[in-house]
This record gives sequence, structure tokens and C-alpha cells, in this order.
Amino acid sequence: MLQARGFLICVASLAAAAPAHAKTMAEVLAASEPSDWRPLDPANTLYVEWDAGRVVIELAPEFAPGTIANVKTLVQQKYFDGLAFIRSQDNYVVQWGDPAEAKRSLGAAKKTVPAEFSRAAKGLTFTPLNNVDAYAPETGFVGSLPAARDAKSNSAWLAHCYGMVGVGRDNAADTANGSEIYVVIGHGPRHLDRNVPLIGRVVQGMDLLSVIPRSRATMGFYEKAEERTPLRSVRLASDVPEAERSRLEVLRSDTQTFTALIEARRNRTEEWFLVPAGHIDVCNVPLPVRERAR
Amino acid sequence: MLQARGFLICVASLAAAAPAHAKTMAEVLAASEPSDWRPLDPANTLYVEWDAGRVVIELAPEFAPGTIANVKTLVQQKYFDGLAFIRSQDNYVVQWGDPAEAKRSLGAAKKTVPAEFSRAAKGLTFTPLNNVDAYAPETGFVGSLPAARDAKSNSAWLAHCYGMVGVGRDNAADTANGSEIYVVIGHGPRHLDRNVPLIGRVVQGMDLLSVIPRSRATMGFYEKAEERTPLRSVRLASDVPEAERSRLEVLRSDTQTFTALIEARRNRTEEWFLVPAGHIDVCNVPLPVRERAR
Repeated sequence: MLQARGFLICVASLAAAAPAHAKTMAEVLAASEPSDWRPLDPANTLYVEWDAGRVVIELAPEFAPGTIANVKTLVQQKYFDGLAFIRSQDNYVVQWGDPAEAKRSLGAAKKTVPAEFSRAAKGLTFTPLNNVDAYAPETGFVGSLPAARDAKSNSAWLAHCYGMVGVGRDNAADTANGSEIYVVIGHGPRHLDRNVPLIGRVVQGMDLLSVIPRSRATMGFYEKAEERTPLRSVRLASDVPEAERSRLEVLRSDTQTFTALIEARRNRTEEWFLVPAGHIDVCNVPLPVRERAR
Repeated sequence: MLQARGFLICVASLAAAAPAHAKTMAEVLAASEPSDWRPLDPANTLYVEWDAGRVVIELAPEFAPGTIANVKTLVQQKYFDGLAFIRSQDNYVVQWGDPAEAKRSLGAAKKTVPAEFSRAAKGLTFTPLNNVDAYAPETGFVGSLPAARDAKSNSAWLAHCYGMVGVGRDNAADTANGSEIYVVIGHGPRHLDRNVPLIGRVVQGMDLLSVIPRSRATMGFYEKAEERTPLRSVRLASDVPEAERSRLEVLRSDTQTFTALIEARRNRTEEWFLVPAGHIDVCNVPLPVRERAR
């Protein structure tokens, strides 16, 4: 059994016995200070619940304030309760919304929202990755989220990495009203960057979302009602009694600990690795989340 | 329903009605010639079967001949029959092998195999992607597989993209003997490139592999027997009666059709896209597979 566990990557077991070397991620995190971590803000945290459990999403209002306001209006009207996952396309996205032809009323929410696909780079605390990127002039992190930046045009945007949460739209840019929400479950589809508003990322429960049965129909939309996984509820954490909230905190990306973590992953020093990559993709930097002490 | 299907990406519905523009992938494939496609070689095709169905893997002996020879020896001894998926780590890999502490005998297969993590670039037909890459000096395609190349050192290697198949190893480089095989089910872990032998890719059935329940235990190894999904069999296609073989063909990457496909994906011209990316990551280039005509 020990041998089987040793296969492919030996992080946990080797960190303790490692000789003097550049730090591993496990060592970087073990040396972190409480101030390196930031609790989730209940007013900007969503809980998506169904039979499998709870998925926790941290929203990013600094990137898509109008879109997120509309999502919150929908959520507080319990728009999604009893709806379903309507799409599961392999190596791409799962998506929830209203499967009916005659859609639920959006109530007080807007039918259209001005596009929020990028924003001014100025005013953002941006931790650069310092690595070339296949898609953007520069990548890095803002508020514990993968992001990209173009200094020339003073613009910044969130990056479509695994676990990022976006809002579906029709062809018109202002149709991303929040009534359909998707999560990336495959290799980062970065060609979607700047084409659709990203509103945050999944900080817990990706392993529940990623196993939702795939559809082989066009674009992964289920064709039969019985294929769809029903949603129980989507709630803002601030609308949930405190005792029922998930007590999570995320590693801040504007810290020396996070910069050290990037370096620990750019060149892996665990004994298993024979050739350190010397490079790292923005979507391959782990974004640590942990339970808060009570 | 039509509106729901229009959300996020409208490829299929728009291709037919598209105005004069650079071709979409659908249009490129529709215009392909039979000679742009290559049938799978039964002697280098694996079928992995369990309750969910069949996964088809195309092997890449030009990159890992010794490792693949050992895998074939194991497969022809029916080494994997009745074993199980022993690992499912979210955004990383699923892996099969022997979960028992006392492992099955490898029989005629070797316990160690000289490392095949890269090879000489010379002699390979390499279709360059012409895009910067986060990890390698150059990326492209060899035999319908994502690959990387370093002209300076005359070396080439396969890239850890979604669906790529590798052989687990212990810390020593020569321990990748084929008794544990993994498939990438998340964002391409390119830091594994040149650290482990890639032996091919899944050409059909990724949607079965990707929903295997995740384990939250260390490195995604299941801790309890009842969590593991049992394997029925792993076979070489050439050992399966012809009537039971999957009749698949893949788009050759050494064709003008494939080069046109890359460009169709580098700048998406479907009406939904408002900002063409202008760039593409090697792991985001689709590698088309289709049923062969009878």
C-alpha cells in the first residue's frame, strides 16, 4: 500500500524529511501567519446546495459589481431553488439555470446588465506571476483569484481557470443577467476571457461539481429531464444562520507567503521531481483554503 | 429551451448561417478530406472497460517504446482485469492499479524500465502551434498529440494536457513499469512534463473517466475498498475480435486541415465571441476523433 501511495507525486510524506532546499508548498503554508489568511465575507459568499452537499463560491465584486448585484437579487428571491444543473460538458463547464421553455420570472432582477468583462487595472492590488502566458501580456492574482492585465490599455480581467465561476449569456454582451451560472471543470478555457463576466470562484466543493454526469448532446445541455441533477437552493452566506455557515478562510495573494508559494510551485523541490519546470501557468497555482479555527 | 441552448457558446447553430469570415472549426472539419484522417492502429490501442463502458486510448510508441512494450506485456497477461481505480484526485488525475498491499506478480513484465520522459526532436513530424507557452520553448503536435520541443537540446516530449495518459512511478526514474496508469482529468499539470512517461491519450470515453468519484484523502488515493470502482478488463484492440473493436479515426496533425483548425480556434469567429483571443494554449486545441464509415 505504501508503494502504491508513493506513485506519481510524493508531497505529503516527503515534506517533513526533506533536506535543506528551497521550500515546498507544505512548508510555506506551515510557516504562514494568521494575518496571511482572510475569512470569506458572508455578503459575498454563495452556497449552492443539492443532494451531494454544499459548494461554496467566493464572489469578486471588484470585477463584476453590477452582474453580482443582479445575481444577489435573484438568489435572495430564491430564483434557483428547485431548478437544476442544465449542462455538463466534459473538459469545459457545468451550468445551472431554468431548464423550462417558459422561464421563471426574474422578479426584481434586471433582464440585461452592462457588460463587465474587464475593468481598469489601476486601483487593483495585483500580484504578478512573472511568467509568460499563452493568452495575456501579464498574469497574476487579485484578491486570491487568477487574473490578467494589459498595462498598455490599463485593463484587467479574471482568468478562466478550473473552478472559476461565470455568468452565461446570449450573443448580446448585456445578456449575462445571472440566471445561468457556470463553473469551469476542465482545462482553463482562456479564450472565454473578456467575453463573459467571471464573478468569483469555487473555494470548496469542486469535487462535487466536477463529477456531475456529462451529457454528450450539443454543448453538454441535457436533453431529458431525468438526466438533470436538481438544485436544492442557492443562498448568500449572510442570509444563512451563522451556525450553519461554512467557516473558511483563503490565503491572501498580496502576501509574501503567497509569493513564496508561487516559487515553491514554479520549481518543485519534493524528491519525486527530477526536472523542476522552472515555469508555472496562472491556472496551476494552488489557491489555498482552510477551515477557520473556532 | 432554444434560449437556454444559446447561452455561453453558440457554435453548432451559427456555423451554417455564418456570414463570410474566417472559417469556424465546424466549417474546417466539414471541408476535410478522407486522407486528413487516420484510423487507430489496433496494435497500439487500449480498451479500458468497467461498468460505465469503454475508454479508448491511443498509444504513442514513438515517445515511450520501452514503457509501452511493458504495458502491453501486462495487458496481455490480463494484469489489470479485476483490479480497480485506486485514485481520483480532483483537478488532477484518475489512476488504476493494484490496491492490495501484496501486489500481483508482474509476470513476464519488467519491474523497472529505463526512463522515457523525452526523446530526440530530430525524426519527428512536428506541427508547431506558433504560440508562446508557459512551460516550454515551443509547443505543437506530433501524431495528433500535444507536444513540446526544445531545439537547443534537440529534445521533444509529450505535454500533460487533459486526457493524456501516463505511467505512475516511485521516486526512482526507472520505476514507471506500467502497473499504475493515470489519466489527466483537470487543468494540464504541465509541471509533470519530462518527469514521467506519457504513453498516449484517451480518444473516447473521457466523460466516463472524469466523473469517477473523487477522494479527499491524501493525493486522492481511496482509503476504503468500497470507494474504488472495479475494472473489468484492459485489452489491446488487436486482441479483441474485429467485430467488437471501436471503429475510430483521428484527424492527422500533419495536415493543412489541422493547421486551419488551429487558426479557427486561435481566433473564434462564431457570432457569440466578441473578443477573439488571438492566442491559444496547446492544451486547448481540440484533437478531433470520429467514427469510421463502415
